[in-house]
Amino acid sequence: MNYPSKLVEEAVNEIAKLPSIGKKTALRLVLHLLKQEEAFTKSLTQALTKLRTETNYCTDCHNISDTAICNICANKLRDHSVVCVVEDTRDVIAVENTHQYNGLYHVLGGVISPIEGISPSELNIESLVQRISQHPEIKEVILAISATMEGDTTAFYITKKLQTFNVKVTTLARGVPVGSELEYTDEVTLGRSILSRVKYEQ
Amino acid sequence: MNYPSKLVEEAVNEIAKLPSIGKKTALRLVLHLLKQEEAFTKSLTQALTKLRTETNYCTDCHNISDTAICNICANKLRDHSVVCVVEDTRDVIAVENTHQYNGLYHVLGGVISPIEGISPSELNIESLVQRISQHPEIKEVILAISATMEGDTTAFYITKKLQTFNVKVTTLARGVPVGSELEYTDEVTLGRSILSRVKYEQ
Repeated sequence: MNYPSKLVEEAVNEIAKLPSIGKKTALRLVLHLLKQEEAFTKSLTQALTKLRTETNYCTDCHNISDTAICNICANKLRDHSVVCVVEDTRDVIAVENTHQYNGLYHVLGGVISPIEGISPSELNIESLVQRISQHPEIKEVILAISATMEGDTTAFYITKKLQTFNVKVTTLARGVPVGSELEYTDEVTLGRSILSRVKYEQ
Repeated sequence: MNYPSKLVEEAVNEIAKLPSIGKKTALRLVLHLLKQEEAFTKSLTQALTKLRTETNYCTDCHNISDTAICNICANKLRDHSVVCVVEDTRDVIAVENTHQYNGLYHVLGGVISPIEGISPSELNIESLVQRISQHPEIKEVILAISATMEGDTTAFYITKKLQTFNVKVTTLARGVPVGSELEYTDEVTLGRSILSRVKYEQ
């Protein structure tokens, strides 16, 4: 593409490096920025710069945090006997939004994936094992990991690692999603939900 | 949504102000930036800052430009007797990419739209009239404006304004798009393409 200006071209190229943003979308965003006040771009770039330079990861749970220990780990009112193991920060936000969980988290930073070359040593699994060994008050580890092959492998690996400790390892219930129709539920999910059926409660 | 960090929240809010980017996408982009090297964010923010502070608009054609007069207007090899009137920079890029046009441009900055409150005075129409009056070498004005109601209104308005000058006003050929099937072409387009049929050339 022939861009009318070198500056536009550079900005388009930088924006198009972001995931799922192509050059056409990038150009649209660039033209939008040019139409807005200068303050608009300024507050955007400042927020991004501050984000990248000042954000920390909690030393306990590896979640993104403004402080050395994140708000959740530092909160005395939360249940420090349960740790929910998740892939990334988005999953922490998703679980928090359910308002059904009051324990702590442990962010792995991904799942074991031989195809993408992610080995267990690149994830925060060793630090989870250490955390369990140093904190005997932890009684339960909930594995809230995606129900994919990579997720299942990761869950299996973690379960093996935690065998020697006196913690209960649980996983999310698999079953028919709330609001979905039986007809459109896949066989594996339906099969599992029959096997792990629960008492009907009114 | 509960964000784990104020910095993340601010960055998400800023990114979500961009068109067609919601909070979920913004969060995905933020987490992507946090996973990359600091240099990645730095070059992105620098490109955006330079874009917004250093980009000019060509004083002749109002296209985005790094200099006072854009590359196209300054190019002596281009045909200075034809001016192609377009809505915005994206249309300049689209026409340039056809490699079928070697004249100049005039960027309106939008189309007349009573619904969105855009009146002719907010567009670069007056400057087009001035340009035509000051440059008698301009013999033809091509209206390359969208075939929408707003676009047609704008084209009609400009044609009226240019009546007193000795310029030929032309518009893009309307017809069946190349590569599309007759069956799926709408009636108006098909009707127009029959009325403005051309001699078959081998």
